[in-house]
Amino acid sequence: MWRSIGFVALNILTVLGRDVSEVLKERKNLLETEMSMMLGRDIILSDSEIKANEIIMNLKYEVIDNGCRDPGVFNLSKHFFEYKEEIKKTTLYKIIKAMPKGAVLHAHDTALLDADYILELTYLPDLYVCFQEEYPLFLFSEDKPRSTCDTRWQLLKEARYSSGNVEKFDAELRKHFTIEVDNPKAVYSNINTVWNKFQQVFIITEPLFSYKPVWEKYFYDSLKKFREDNVMYIEIRSVLPQLYDLEGNIYDIKDTAVSYKNVLDQFKKDYPDFFGAKLIYAPLKFVNDISEYIKTAKELKNMLPTFFAGFDLVGQEDTMVPLKKYMRELVEAEKDLDFFLHAGETNWYGTDSDENIADAIVLNTKRIGHAFALTKHPLLLKEVKKRNIAIEVNVISNNVLKLVDDVRNHPLATFLAIDAPVVISCDDPGLWGAEPLTHDFYVAFVGVASKHADLRVLKKLALNSLYYSTIYDKDKLVHEFDIRWTKFIDSIVRDVNASS
Amino acid sequence: MWRSIGFVALNILTVLGRDVSEVLKERKNLLETEMSMMLGRDIILSDSEIKANEIIMNLKYEVIDNGCRDPGVFNLSKHFFEYKEEIKKTTLYKIIKAMPKGAVLHAHDTALLDADYILELTYLPDLYVCFQEEYPLFLFSEDKPRSTCDTRWQLLKEARYSSGNVEKFDAELRKHFTIEVDNPKAVYSNINTVWNKFQQVFIITEPLFSYKPVWEKYFYDSLKKFREDNVMYIEIRSVLPQLYDLEGNIYDIKDTAVSYKNVLDQFKKDYPDFFGAKLIYAPLKFVNDISEYIKTAKELKNMLPTFFAGFDLVGQEDTMVPLKKYMRELVEAEKDLDFFLHAGETNWYGTDSDENIADAIVLNTKRIGHAFALTKHPLLLKEVKKRNIAIEVNVISNNVLKLVDDVRNHPLATFLAIDAPVVISCDDPGLWGAEPLTHDFYVAFVGVASKHADLRVLKKLALNSLYYSTIYDKDKLVHEFDIRWTKFIDSIVRDVNASS
Repeated sequence: MWRSIGFVALNILTVLGRDVSEVLKERKNLLETEMSMMLGRDIILSDSEIKANEIIMNLKYEVIDNGCRDPGVFNLSKHFFEYKEEIKKTTLYKIIKAMPKGAVLHAHDTALLDADYILELTYLPDLYVCFQEEYPLFLFSEDKPRSTCDTRWQLLKEARYSSGNVEKFDAELRKHFTIEVDNPKAVYSNINTVWNKFQQVFIITEPLFSYKPVWEKYFYDSLKKFREDNVMYIEIRSVLPQLYDLEGNIYDIKDTAVSYKNVLDQFKKDYPDFFGAKLIYAPLKFVNDISEYIKTAKELKNMLPTFFAGFDLVGQEDTMVPLKKYMRELVEAEKDLDFFLHAGETNWYGTDSDENIADAIVLNTKRIGHAFALTKHPLLLKEVKKRNIAIEVNVISNNVLKLVDDVRNHPLATFLAIDAPVVISCDDPGLWGAEPLTHDFYVAFVGVASKHADLRVLKKLALNSLYYSTIYDKDKLVHEFDIRWTKFIDSIVRDVNASS
Repeated sequence: MWRSIGFVALNILTVLGRDVSEVLKERKNLLETEMSMMLGRDIILSDSEIKANEIIMNLKYEVIDNGCRDPGVFNLSKHFFEYKEEIKKTTLYKIIKAMPKGAVLHAHDTALLDADYILELTYLPDLYVCFQEEYPLFLFSEDKPRSTCDTRWQLLKEARYSSGNVEKFDAELRKHFTIEVDNPKAVYSNINTVWNKFQQVFIITEPLFSYKPVWEKYFYDSLKKFREDNVMYIEIRSVLPQLYDLEGNIYDIKDTAVSYKNVLDQFKKDYPDFFGAKLIYAPLKFVNDISEYIKTAKELKNMLPTFFAGFDLVGQEDTMVPLKKYMRELVEAEKDLDFFLHAGETNWYGTDSDENIADAIVLNTKRIGHAFALTKHPLLLKEVKKRNIAIEVNVISNNVLKLVDDVRNHPLATFLAIDAPVVISCDDPGLWGAEPLTHDFYVAFVGVASKHADLRVLKKLALNSLYYSTIYDKDKLVHEFDIRWTKFIDSIVRDVNASS
């Protein structure tokens, strides 16, 4: 009986039909509600910001509209190497470069500066080289090194000038300091091929960087470069190699951390507007037993309580030991250490590397590195939001390290849509010749986020990076950010007024 | 005060630490809960199914484990053209081929059969060809056609034999009937280049197919091929071209639909185990006014009430008219017509084509074609689930038509994870030389779904295709499916028992 009445009512409704304005209203409501769910929803723009936003959005629309019309001209769906220089020339890129971007929370210490910088290091005195078939060995030394070498050790300076063609010599040498190539899609046919090259660069450069004077110079120059890119603060991950010097000293890895702290102190003296740096000790997850790592981490924390941020484990996730194997040690350590674990940097759904995300969550990680696989895990995604675990997204890294060819398919789009706790970071910008943070912000904003995502998203991403940092005095940091932000907004509006 | 008590309590907990078993239990619980949310969760496997599942899963694990170890050997993250023949040789593919797969709910009528089949059609008598610079024109005719031709009309038979090399002639001709090429990533640099070729094949083959005898033969042979691929039922989308014959008759497009119905009746007589087909009238969305389309659709519905399923609009979504422009006509039509709208077949987040999904939803579409962009729309995704709108996923289509390079990034992974109303379909298998439905099921199962996704997912996807079809007597269809499914399961278990 009820069913047939319902049926009649439905039929009347169907026969009468709906009004188009009603349907359009429902459509508008759905899309507006979605916009009100997006990251940045809580940001209210000032009048100046509204003006700046209009400028920024017009520049963004132009890129996207041109791309829709002719996808061939849309750079951001290509490989990063194909467009990284070209976009630097654009006004929108320059605006994002000038923008205060907050903190870098996911970056590896020996991959911050690019191949040109490393090549320059090879002009330092006392550097020996041994050219081997696969890759060269380096060592700073007063005398000819006695360590194993397939061919022979020679002073790099001599090798360079006896080569007969310094330019060619340097160009060949430079190739060992970057994963950049002309035809990346052909050269790096899959994730293993690119990771092999990627890891090789770390191996090759290790003896260059772990020479104590270089170590300190490299970190100082990194801070300088990040500061120039309008980064206020950085938390760096390090495997903490043992440093050495010309006198034959091999330092304890705790000295490596101390050396960072000293450099930082000097840098802050030289540039008082820089807010600082912290260290995440992040050794490689290929050992069976991490208790030695944990012990070191605790010692570092005791020794450098204000500089040490926490613990992580790094390496190619698909081929290395899954977190679950280290569960006992990690659970034991959690009362002493904060975790910032890499997890889900993979395309392999339902495998150990994919499920590392669950481990990271139950281990109360403060932030997750990458979590690229997270959109395939509705419950884990919900938990990450509920527990307020920040997702450290590195879009360009995921492109060049072969997780996603077209960044428009990057899961960040979904993270932004649901206002997940996201921070944008850069991972290893030096290895692919990206600028410290601007490239990643640009690609995230123009290539991944909705066409509608505006200045509020940019501002919120910058604020998130401060909020999810471990810095003690966040209020001060945010206050300083606000001052810089206002200046930045004023400069956009002023520049346009001046040129119009 | 309360704050400091809370602080002390927290500290005690932190100092005491947790037991590892407790943490492992939480991890297990999270992952198991996720599994219980996945598509297929309501399927309970019989003893035989459990045995069959073990066989299937071991085959699947082998592919994935090998891929994890050496991503270079994992076919499914490559372009479909690179592996489509190779996977056909595998046991797992053969099992999925034998599996009753239910219904095909998203397929375009003139893209069901492959280039070899079309090439054979060119051996029919009375076929004339005009070779032009870009592509050839065809026409069946008693006499030399008088329609425009840049060069000259000649009998195809004569052109073929006067070419001096029939094999080469046919190979050249065949290229016009497929989008397959040797180096797809180089040839199709972006979505527009591949869509241009894709649309060209439709244009070239149109005068071949719309010759009435061929039209009927093609449909009959399509049904045959789909039936052989263990498809029970199909809902085809058609632009419904005007047919012609040798006598110079040009038929009304309603006759085109009638001709389908007649072929179907004959086919069902010849193959009583086939459950049938329905028609979705799906003209191109490039006109300003669709009222003529709507009128035709209503007439078709009146004329063929059991054969006509509903209405859709097709074409490259990024470049064609968005649904919102047709809102008035569509809202007016909704009391008379069921919609099965394409929407969100795009990478462009926040654009009209992306937001077509919202239009489709508010227009009460019964199913959505593709909805590739849906995971970027948390609210729309929720609505789709709530309103039980089936998502017609065509993984291989999205790969070859350049939405996703590596299917492991296909949004289907998320749809499966949340048990969204998904059906797997094939779109235009003839144009890329895929088998009717097996290739799509294989890629979805092995390449996109979780490693853990098992026989329950396969069965549920097949059942979904019946459930979300418009067939009247679903119970009968499901009953027949069950019988075939049981036979299929028994055959797997038997084959293994026999060979062991």
